[in-house]
Amino acid sequence: MKSDSDQIQVKGEKMQRFVCKFGGSSLADAGQFRKVADIIKARPVRKYIVVSAPGKRNDDDIKVTDMLYSCYYSADAKQDYSIILGQIRDRFAEIIDGLSISFDLDAEIEEIKKNLSEHPMKDYMASRGEYLNAKIMAKFLGFEFVDAADAVRFDQNGQFLPEQTNRDLNAILSGKEYVVIPGFYGARPDGQIQTFSRGGSDITGSIVARAIFADMYENWTDVSGMLSADPRIIKDPHPILALSYRELRELSYMGASVLHEDAVFPIRKANIPLNIRNTNHPDDPGTLISAELPRVPRKHKVTGIAGKKGFSAILIEKSSMNNEVGFGMKLLKIFADHGVSFEHTPTGIDTMSVVVQNNLFNPYRDVITEEINNELHPDSYYIEDNLALIAVVGQGMAYSRGTAARIMNALAGARINIKMIDQGSTEINIILGVDEVDYEEAIRAIYNAVM
Amino acid sequence: MKSDSDQIQVKGEKMQRFVCKFGGSSLADAGQFRKVADIIKARPVRKYIVVSAPGKRNDDDIKVTDMLYSCYYSADAKQDYSIILGQIRDRFAEIIDGLSISFDLDAEIEEIKKNLSEHPMKDYMASRGEYLNAKIMAKFLGFEFVDAADAVRFDQNGQFLPEQTNRDLNAILSGKEYVVIPGFYGARPDGQIQTFSRGGSDITGSIVARAIFADMYENWTDVSGMLSADPRIIKDPHPILALSYRELRELSYMGASVLHEDAVFPIRKANIPLNIRNTNHPDDPGTLISAELPRVPRKHKVTGIAGKKGFSAILIEKSSMNNEVGFGMKLLKIFADHGVSFEHTPTGIDTMSVVVQNNLFNPYRDVITEEINNELHPDSYYIEDNLALIAVVGQGMAYSRGTAARIMNALAGARINIKMIDQGSTEINIILGVDEVDYEEAIRAIYNAVM
Repeated sequence: MKSDSDQIQVKGEKMQRFVCKFGGSSLADAGQFRKVADIIKARPVRKYIVVSAPGKRNDDDIKVTDMLYSCYYSADAKQDYSIILGQIRDRFAEIIDGLSISFDLDAEIEEIKKNLSEHPMKDYMASRGEYLNAKIMAKFLGFEFVDAADAVRFDQNGQFLPEQTNRDLNAILSGKEYVVIPGFYGARPDGQIQTFSRGGSDITGSIVARAIFADMYENWTDVSGMLSADPRIIKDPHPILALSYRELRELSYMGASVLHEDAVFPIRKANIPLNIRNTNHPDDPGTLISAELPRVPRKHKVTGIAGKKGFSAILIEKSSMNNEVGFGMKLLKIFADHGVSFEHTPTGIDTMSVVVQNNLFNPYRDVITEEINNELHPDSYYIEDNLALIAVVGQGMAYSRGTAARIMNALAGARINIKMIDQGSTEINIILGVDEVDYEEAIRAIYNAVM
Repeated sequence: MKSDSDQIQVKGEKMQRFVCKFGGSSLADAGQFRKVADIIKARPVRKYIVVSAPGKRNDDDIKVTDMLYSCYYSADAKQDYSIILGQIRDRFAEIIDGLSISFDLDAEIEEIKKNLSEHPMKDYMASRGEYLNAKIMAKFLGFEFVDAADAVRFDQNGQFLPEQTNRDLNAILSGKEYVVIPGFYGARPDGQIQTFSRGGSDITGSIVARAIFADMYENWTDVSGMLSADPRIIKDPHPILALSYRELRELSYMGASVLHEDAVFPIRKANIPLNIRNTNHPDDPGTLISAELPRVPRKHKVTGIAGKKGFSAILIEKSSMNNEVGFGMKLLKIFADHGVSFEHTPTGIDTMSVVVQNNLFNPYRDVITEEINNELHPDSYYIEDNLALIAVVGQGMAYSRGTAARIMNALAGARINIKMIDQGSTEINIILGVDEVDYEEAIRAIYNAVM
């Protein structure tokens, strides 16, 4: 553990506090644990560590959490779970041995076995990977272990309680520094363990960051940050060094793979920057996400390109609809009445389209069609399926004049028909609709034109 | 008047019936009357003639209808109207003399004077220009005069009755060919003259065309058809030879000067083509407007460019609004509740803009702002005034890939910031938003790029 004098040596950083969350692949074995420890020790501001369960060591490996679920299902079905629990024990024993620390693993396994026999609980069992990893990491680092069950609060129905959690986390952690907290879970009022349904340990890291007023939330993964396009479509897309929370939201909404929205929400609200880093390449700067536009000038006006298939456009044509006050509202109400949220509503002079996710729309296709015909009496009504949407996102685009032109040129050059264009006033994105068959080609054309 | 044998000489045309409407400048003096007669006699299909009142003979001239209004106001104020009525009489006398026809103008003027003294009626008086012109033209052509007061029906509140008119016009005209009908007016059930509030004689021509199942509605003016852009902005824009009713609607909605919507509606509904022609250049083909895309290939993918200033964009930003079913509907409902119709609703991921006409929005600016804040709790709310919209219209664009690119390029080249782009699925237009100060320059840049 760092002493006060150690901290003083790093000027200006002494008072700062970073929350560092390490994902499963960063903690898959003892070698990864050592990398993580080196990262943490490299900067004394890395005071609050949140850990996942051990992930896969290679493509054929099994995540510890998946083994824990298997173990639970066997126990719940009154079948023999000793072999699988033995395998779980072996994974942790290997880590402990590799780190050369003293850790009473058998006592922990006995405790798990006891709970499993008396009253098997799925969430409790699923959470043991994080729990043990946090205890082992705390021991290895010489940090204090704080159990998430003591501060991360759910109600008796399993609903997360963000404000109570924030208060309790702050109370527990405010006097402490250099702690390790398991991710992924918390507890109900009766003490029963409850896991997050989405976002997992990323959420724990985020709510800890909010509770302790962190200066930074470092999210350590196995990639060097976000990529500016889908690597399955673009070969070696360049990484995004910095982007705003708004850009992040737009890219991730449109399919860019990044932290779950629930994990971003607490830190975005609290205005805490997020740094996505690579445990295996700790010198890579990763991606820095913050509220403001990055101060460094960016090479590209476009920050990233993302997209999704599976949309439908419902096109309504009616003479003089512009003069019919409330027409658009009535049209959108029909969709809202069936719980179908819309993505875009391109409007011509006498036309209005509603672009929706196909899977949301399909169950209500007939009834929505019927209601539109009965209530709005359109001159014509047409549904276009197999639409893909592409978002070209970049806060710099709002002040740039040539980006839209370059995008259109690129698509024209690739002979791709643009089905829809949506760019709003003071927008930081352009949304394009293309036929699904043109999707990958359109992404490639745009990427090559603007990146 | 043409005999049956004359008609047979024009093959295939015998059974056809054209309605020809001539505007004020086409009937400003005897010379113009002769040009009109030549046009009518040139094709025997020109059987139903609708006339305006005599227009200006030169820039300093006064339209007869304006003189008639003056005369009425004088009479209504019990002032001496004899001088102005004398001037009106002189205008018609000059035409009659120039045409060398026998016409009892004094009897007509006496009748007007009598009505004016006994019970001055504004609409009656305003309509006398068309009435006399139609009678003179009928005499000159040897056609039958049919008074619009006998067939064009209004209710006792002055509301036009399109279906009753259609029935009565059809009944009166179905047995007749080669008739002249005054435009601009009809009558209430009690016989009182009622003029159209908008569209004037163009409407009369259109409803006559509908009633007699015309093959063509020729609208003769002093321009050789529609222009592809505003000549105040573009020097000598090329004329539009042919366009569809849908393109016409889009261009005229966005400010292109052409027949009033009320005059287009009856013939569009009845699928009757409209030909805008120039009385002073009868060999010019003018602009042909029809339901289908013209069969001749068109040189330009873009048919026309039109635009308007005076819009505002209300930009709402709210995290995760896409997940809030009904958000867009609630937003539009606030505008609809105040009778403010919207033009466009560009939507980003967490943003939605509502583009409205500034003059409709301004009276409700505060209350709409308040309701949006209270009901939708946006993260941010911003109004951008001084927005101009430009519509680039062309049915060919839907099948063309390069047009959007050329437009964007042109605007980028002119260093014009695009505030909004709206192009819907299977649309025939692209709507662009630019700052009002950039409006004329943007039109020029687009015109030069796509025309």
